[in-house]
Amino acid sequence: MRAAYMFGAGDVRVVDAPDPSIQLPTDALVRVTAACVCGSDLHPYRKMKPLPDGRPMGHEFVGVVEAVGDDVASLRPGHHVIAPFVWSDGTCDFCQEGLQTSCRHGGGWDAATGGGQGELVRVPFADATLVHVPGGIDESLTPSMLTLSDVYGTGYHAAYTARVGKGQTVAVVGDGAVGLMAVLSAAQLGAERIILMGRHAVRTDLGVAFGATEVVAERGEEGIERVKELTGGDGVHAVLEAVGYLDAYEQALGIVRPGGVISRVGVPQYSDGPIGRGQFTRNITITGGIAPVRAYIDELLPWVLDGTVDPGRVFDAEVALEDIADGYRRMDSREALKVLVRP
Amino acid sequence: MRAAYMFGAGDVRVVDAPDPSIQLPTDALVRVTAACVCGSDLHPYRKMKPLPDGRPMGHEFVGVVEAVGDDVASLRPGHHVIAPFVWSDGTCDFCQEGLQTSCRHGGGWDAATGGGQGELVRVPFADATLVHVPGGIDESLTPSMLTLSDVYGTGYHAAYTARVGKGQTVAVVGDGAVGLMAVLSAAQLGAERIILMGRHAVRTDLGVAFGATEVVAERGEEGIERVKELTGGDGVHAVLEAVGYLDAYEQALGIVRPGGVISRVGVPQYSDGPIGRGQFTRNITITGGIAPVRAYIDELLPWVLDGTVDPGRVFDAEVALEDIADGYRRMDSREALKVLVRP
Repeated sequence: MRAAYMFGAGDVRVVDAPDPSIQLPTDALVRVTAACVCGSDLHPYRKMKPLPDGRPMGHEFVGVVEAVGDDVASLRPGHHVIAPFVWSDGTCDFCQEGLQTSCRHGGGWDAATGGGQGELVRVPFADATLVHVPGGIDESLTPSMLTLSDVYGTGYHAAYTARVGKGQTVAVVGDGAVGLMAVLSAAQLGAERIILMGRHAVRTDLGVAFGATEVVAERGEEGIERVKELTGGDGVHAVLEAVGYLDAYEQALGIVRPGGVISRVGVPQYSDGPIGRGQFTRNITITGGIAPVRAYIDELLPWVLDGTVDPGRVFDAEVALEDIADGYRRMDSREALKVLVRP
Repeated sequence: MRAAYMFGAGDVRVVDAPDPSIQLPTDALVRVTAACVCGSDLHPYRKMKPLPDGRPMGHEFVGVVEAVGDDVASLRPGHHVIAPFVWSDGTCDFCQEGLQTSCRHGGGWDAATGGGQGELVRVPFADATLVHVPGGIDESLTPSMLTLSDVYGTGYHAAYTARVGKGQTVAVVGDGAVGLMAVLSAAQLGAERIILMGRHAVRTDLGVAFGATEVVAERGEEGIERVKELTGGDGVHAVLEAVGYLDAYEQALGIVRPGGVISRVGVPQYSDGPIGRGQFTRNITITGGIAPVRAYIDELLPWVLDGTVDPGRVFDAEVALEDIADGYRRMDSREALKVLVRP
């Protein structure tokens, strides 16, 4: 099959890779119909050391079941499915608690399964991992379905773990796809005011369409001052931090209200940070983490199906799999917000 | 009046201080019947720079109302009251949310009010700040009532904000008075297993009496390994960190289960700490902070009154106010766990 591999920083190529196949009776084989490039793929794209054999890329995809192992009960060939960005057994205590990212037997999409940016993927624990969309995925809904694979569930994780609720004032740090999905999720959960902190008008405009009530383009101390002004000096009940750099976390600390919550869904690119008396005396809670998106798909899918939400609007570019290197380039240069990939 | 003042590290003296008096119509004047030395008083006791005029000490006390301002509605002279360790207006949004430590018009016990380790205290916003104990405080219950002023509510804050619940495994880091109160609180909230990490057998024995099911005397990496062994390698659902040093926080990070919570109620003696990818990929929540004990007194008082709990057992020494310097010395040397002071 054809699949995107990364061989080093800035070096993504589509290569001939071995076709994955059913290996365990709980596996399914899925033909990818749409995938995408993730903001987190840009970290290796910027700093990966050269790897002669490369590694398969992609962890977000929707597709059609091509074959199933003997123990797969709920899926059959032809079923349209959404794959979350990790696979999980669905039965361990962590899965039962909705923390599939810590599944005792789970893992990520890699050389052993095939990456999402390829034609075929072997899906372990298919019954638990995949979400079947009855009636199939309508072409017009493909982008939105694809967001359920990662960015929508990740944004929702931020809002959910921050316990965003009715009447609250929420700030979202970051106007990337996850930040915009955090805006949408905060709106769904009843936030009264949503302040989106971002500098790219095209993106923040989309954020307004998703429910942001105010946009703050300033960053750092200036951004903190602006949010304080907007909130009578208090700051916000919840900050959804969708960037991952230390200055974004520090910005979050600067704008959160006493008793408030910072939920981080941007992968931290730092080890240590402020966590001392300044946070303690204000009773700030720091939560979030890598999102167990599988836990949220069942809840969010109906909203997508009935058109209440249209998260697929985060995709502003599309490339054929053979042209995926260009997709990486466009996301890296911020020319594109999020790139959909068609194998 | 006589009152304890600190003039520098290791220098606590009882001096003649001006009698506080009613200054605002919402004030009450309280004659202190019992106070105590707090673990947090030991921080200045160890490192305070010399201050020629000294400053009044003490923020935990129970007493009898001596006089009230014209606007005080719920209290009258002779009422027995519990004072939380900060005063608060009871009406602002933070107070209404149960975060009285962030009250918009609140403050701590200081030169303007008199400290708790003195004969008299002026209590601002007396209706909101003080909790009246109908029928008076029975002498046998004085120590337990006094814990409601700080350590019991602080331990409860740890367990409450960590969302300790039925069936959980909880670890408490620290065998000081707050740690032991965290044990008691975790037991009240239904924890199935409570692992107390502490090295002082007299204290950990009391912890067992309060509900600890296991004691781990080891610290650091060794302590982490021991807790991991006790929990099948997983760690615990919640860590209640009642120390405040960086190594206690790091210990908490080492023993918390994926998806778990660290609640800190020991005042952090550090600014920065690990808060990066290691916490993120395991979805660790960090919560707690300075405890709004006023929010918990109404809930905890009935348990004390009916004898369900006996938190007053944390007091293992008593001194007259004139001898309070000796009380500080005994707590500082760990000779005493918690010292009750009688003005």
